[in-house]
Amino acid sequence: MLRKDVNDLLTQTDSGTPMGDMFRQYWIPALLASELPEDDCAPVRVKLLGERLIAFRDSKGRYGLMDEFCAHRGVSLWFGRNEEGGLRCPYHGWKYDYTGQCIEVPSEPDESGFCEKVKLQAYPLIKIGDILWTHMGDKEDRPPKPTWEFATVPAEQTYTSKRWQECNWLQAMEGGIDSSHVSFLHSGGLKSDPLFKGAKGNQYNHADKKPVFEVTEAEGGLYIGARRNAEEGHFYWRITPWVMPSFTMVPPRGDHPMHGHFWIPIDDENCWAWSFDYHPTRALTEAEVQYMRDGHGVHNEYVPGTFRPLQNKDNDYMMDRDAQKRGDTYSGIKGIAMQDASLQESMGPIVDRTKENLVSTDNGIIMARHRLRKAVTALRDKGVTPPGRDPAHQMVRSVAVVLPADQPYAETCKEDLAARPGQKHTSV
Amino acid sequence: MLRKDVNDLLTQTDSGTPMGDMFRQYWIPALLASELPEDDCAPVRVKLLGERLIAFRDSKGRYGLMDEFCAHRGVSLWFGRNEEGGLRCPYHGWKYDYTGQCIEVPSEPDESGFCEKVKLQAYPLIKIGDILWTHMGDKEDRPPKPTWEFATVPAEQTYTSKRWQECNWLQAMEGGIDSSHVSFLHSGGLKSDPLFKGAKGNQYNHADKKPVFEVTEAEGGLYIGARRNAEEGHFYWRITPWVMPSFTMVPPRGDHPMHGHFWIPIDDENCWAWSFDYHPTRALTEAEVQYMRDGHGVHNEYVPGTFRPLQNKDNDYMMDRDAQKRGDTYSGIKGIAMQDASLQESMGPIVDRTKENLVSTDNGIIMARHRLRKAVTALRDKGVTPPGRDPAHQMVRSVAVVLPADQPYAETCKEDLAARPGQKHTSV
Amino acid sequence: MLRKDVNDLLTQTDSGTPMGDMFRQYWIPALLASELPEDDCAPVRVKLLGERLIAFRDSKGRYGLMDEFCAHRGVSLWFGRNEEGGLRCPYHGWKYDYTGQCIEVPSEPDESGFCEKVKLQAYPLIKIGDILWTHMGDKEDRPPKPTWEFATVPAEQTYTSKRWQECNWLQAMEGGIDSSHVSFLHSGGLKSDPLFKGAKGNQYNHADKKPVFEVTEAEGGLYIGARRNAEEGHFYWRITPWVMPSFTMVPPRGDHPMHGHFWIPIDDENCWAWSFDYHPTRALTEAEVQYMRDGHGVHNEYVPGTFRPLQNKDNDYMMDRDAQKRGDTYSGIKGIAMQDASLQESMGPIVDRTKENLVSTDNGIIMARHRLRKAVTALRDKGVTPPGRDPAHQMVRSVAVVLPADQPYAETCKEDLAARPGQKHTSV
Repeated sequence: MLRKDVNDLLTQTDSGTPMGDMFRQYWIPALLASELPEDDCAPVRVKLLGERLIAFRDSKGRYGLMDEFCAHRGVSLWFGRNEEGGLRCPYHGWKYDYTGQCIEVPSEPDESGFCEKVKLQAYPLIKIGDILWTHMGDKEDRPPKPTWEFATVPAEQTYTSKRWQECNWLQAMEGGIDSSHVSFLHSGGLKSDPLFKGAKGNQYNHADKKPVFEVTEAEGGLYIGARRNAEEGHFYWRITPWVMPSFTMVPPRGDHPMHGHFWIPIDDENCWAWSFDYHPTRALTEAEVQYMRDGHGVHNEYVPGTFRPLQNKDNDYMMDRDAQKRGDTYSGIKGIAMQDASLQESMGPIVDRTKENLVSTDNGIIMARHRLRKAVTALRDKGVTPPGRDPAHQMVRSVAVVLPADQPYAETCKEDLAARPGQKHTSV
Repeated sequence: MLRKDVNDLLTQTDSGTPMGDMFRQYWIPALLASELPEDDCAPVRVKLLGERLIAFRDSKGRYGLMDEFCAHRGVSLWFGRNEEGGLRCPYHGWKYDYTGQCIEVPSEPDESGFCEKVKLQAYPLIKIGDILWTHMGDKEDRPPKPTWEFATVPAEQTYTSKRWQECNWLQAMEGGIDSSHVSFLHSGGLKSDPLFKGAKGNQYNHADKKPVFEVTEAEGGLYIGARRNAEEGHFYWRITPWVMPSFTMVPPRGDHPMHGHFWIPIDDENCWAWSFDYHPTRALTEAEVQYMRDGHGVHNEYVPGTFRPLQNKDNDYMMDRDAQKRGDTYSGIKGIAMQDASLQESMGPIVDRTKENLVSTDNGIIMARHRLRKAVTALRDKGVTPPGRDPAHQMVRSVAVVLPADQPYAETCKEDLAARPGQKHTSV
Repeated sequence: MLRKDVNDLLTQTDSGTPMGDMFRQYWIPALLASELPEDDCAPVRVKLLGERLIAFRDSKGRYGLMDEFCAHRGVSLWFGRNEEGGLRCPYHGWKYDYTGQCIEVPSEPDESGFCEKVKLQAYPLIKIGDILWTHMGDKEDRPPKPTWEFATVPAEQTYTSKRWQECNWLQAMEGGIDSSHVSFLHSGGLKSDPLFKGAKGNQYNHADKKPVFEVTEAEGGLYIGARRNAEEGHFYWRITPWVMPSFTMVPPRGDHPMHGHFWIPIDDENCWAWSFDYHPTRALTEAEVQYMRDGHGVHNEYVPGTFRPLQNKDNDYMMDRDAQKRGDTYSGIKGIAMQDASLQESMGPIVDRTKENLVSTDNGIIMARHRLRKAVTALRDKGVTPPGRDPAHQMVRSVAVVLPADQPYAETCKEDLAARPGQKHTSV
């Protein structure tokens, strides 16, 4: 349960809000690189943290991300011409380069120096992995570039998608660190999803529906360990790393690729659910990639031409009561991703956390909120840089492992929980 | 004309409002019984008096009506699994019985006693006739069960439908007690509707467009008598009972079934128009039932899979100007029900009653508002139980009768205005 | 740049606002005459200056424009029966004549004198040219009838259309007096549009993208002269008259018909863009009229059965990036009208003028705002009648002319800038 003012503090991210300031401390995913596929291609509207922006790729392949609206009279630059090193407003031909600097105002004399004084608010946009990342904060305090393993392995080992989720970022993220729902909501998917099924660990998930949670602090966030009974004298541990503010990884299953998410605010009532799958030591197979494209695993199908899921609240997520009855799917909703999204969206745009009744399996959520709150108030009140910017904080992995009952997971799996380029993940 | 504060008082029914408290004094229709057709069938979302609820029917046929959202973290129980005596949230498996009591929290030790402490706000749901009724008020002060004649005659004698109306309940209900519009708006329908036409009384409706209204107080509400000229020295009386807060009956026509309505707030800008047809002494014929299903009489056609009328504000109620010109329909809108609904919705979501110009034929409306206001303030200020809960108040009938000019309708028709099981209605 | 309070002052036109009072000083276009094509035809809903009105044409061909809602209980008279000299509410048969006077209340005794006391707010509606005009202000202070040349030439010489524009009237109107964007946004259209192409003047538009603006005060508003380089020692002048509050004319091209616009507030976030084409001395050719009907020139195509453009914000105005790339259209949007509308709507419903960066080519806009502000405050504070009501103010024309460099346009073209019935326009 959260007081209303705390709920507001953690869920509001527009410019000028404390949590908005905190998100602006990080490199965050802004677009799929494939959305800007070539030089001088069509610009793309992007809304992030409540700001309406335009992204483009200029004639030399440089990426720009800036105010959507022309500084002259406010026309949307989405209608702009992307040509010869800049994006030109089609109303009166004002032109901007990838830094937001106005480089031409045709009606003004060149010698007037007018256009030098015009600059749109702009943010850097850099490609790492399949993603274009931005940092929307103070450029004097730019963090080191992102080092997430999924984004830095060779291209053939990784796959990324994004989908529009119609609720606040925090309730989406909380779903990501809550592995206790897997035994219920995803019980059907564990058996049938080609990117999940067949792992030995799944049997423990099915058998023990009362996981015990042990949450450990990490420098960049938390490790959330879910302990289920395994063979005599052993526990099956599923360990989810959470890195501030909104990176999570699902514990792996057998030799399947590992997956995880970023939860990035579009505005207070919408977010981007970024989903990736990668294997640390081998290329994804053709079959695996096809499964991901087809919406299996943590990915999903789309309304054509959009990033909105094909299953969405307007069609009740294509609820199939017969499948629910038969148990093919636990909730009647098809697909791991939409099973989560449907429920998270059903809570409303911003869930009222004053009405919750949390239990011990929600410890991960409770502690994540606590750390977020501590970090956001420290930043607001004392200017303290929050955790999660440091490359070392980002070098994490999820783990699925069977350990003797007397071994503490955090110490035992210390190495397994770190990203180790070229070394396989620890997964049962 | 009403002052703005009085209009607000009578139209607002969310939890905590005076009129909301008053509606919570009664058993009101919540769902058609056919919406929960079998044990363990799909749960149904229900919004009543501004509250979002979920209705279900458990493995033993018991009906439940409770908060739509799981007490844990707020997921909609519409996604729930209805199984083995309860509705289970698909997120973490919390399970509720038909009283809203949580009966299982899988992650918690059975001995913890945790789930006993979790109970959703729930209301009783009982089947009487074709309707599932609820009482959303204090369970210590539950009224006697509903005794409305239409709901208590044998099943083959009665038929009920409901439709979503996109305006406040009060302006819908006011249409129900306003029989002066019949000579105009429904003049086409009187001639052509298979459930209306052919009654001798219709000719008086057509001939005398200046009815005189005499309104009499009843214990549960009002009798609204509309007097039109009949043969020499006689009046044709159409008498509409109104029982608090929102039950009305249309005066009958010949041997046609009798019909009436409940007007139940969904929220302040939407209501359910419940419509029933029954015959006190005989089964409805196959033809009659088919007419009702086809949307004749007080019923209507639907957007498939919904309770929204096929004719609605998005398609201008399928206005047919040629039919209007020819006089086939007076307003150009097809069907008695949609003739009323189209005009009531055209007033806006909550009509501004400060701008009205009421006339003598609006006496029924004026007196109903007066009684509502008196009852709602007596309840609010002194805790006085309002009229309409008493079974005797509910045993009413509408009447259509020709009387000698010197006979007062209320005294003369005292018996006719009472529901008398097994006896035919008084209808010309 | 405007302060927020000034932006509000100029953009808000509901009843009781200063700019609303100012618009109510004029005869403004309300409907196309073709919307009320015959006596006793269907009434039409009209929203103007935030007021919801109903327009109709009675049995004798008289036009009425009055409150949309019946004085009795607020039903929309759009459902009304238009018959025998009045519009009758279909609920209880109240009937109104074209002046808004209630002429029948069937339920009341004729001798009661009741209906004489009931009168809806009504405005005159007069046909001049293809337009039904209204004056929504004080009837004691009714201005002379409109004398605009486009509306008073013989019918075969003129063509008028209207379209719904989803933004405030002011940013639409500002587009109308901003001829500097033509060299950019409409550069494709100058070459290909059958109602624009082929004029000698177009070459100057293409060649000189740095027009110099000279704005001259006129009694009714402004003349906005845009000077571009022509042959040695000569300038090409395009002169746009603006008459208060919202009439503009595009400078002509060769012997093409002349065109112009009214920008009329529907409410603060929507306006009507009225577009006309006329030739002062000859009938429009069949081909020209067909081009206009097909949406060429300043006209557009529609969503069938509506005045909403077929290209609209819901379909991104059917953006064609390939056409933009090739330069067939400068912005990728087809058609002069939608090129303007798309950008003006992209600014948002009411553009935030505190964020503008105006330049010298915006002088017309700056001065028009200045005059509007002066007029609206003079009216508000001192009751001064604003310019633009006087027939002489309305007798203007746009001009396109090549002048020797030393000749001032305003003096030289004084006669050309005046409407001169039977004389050709001055156009290069």
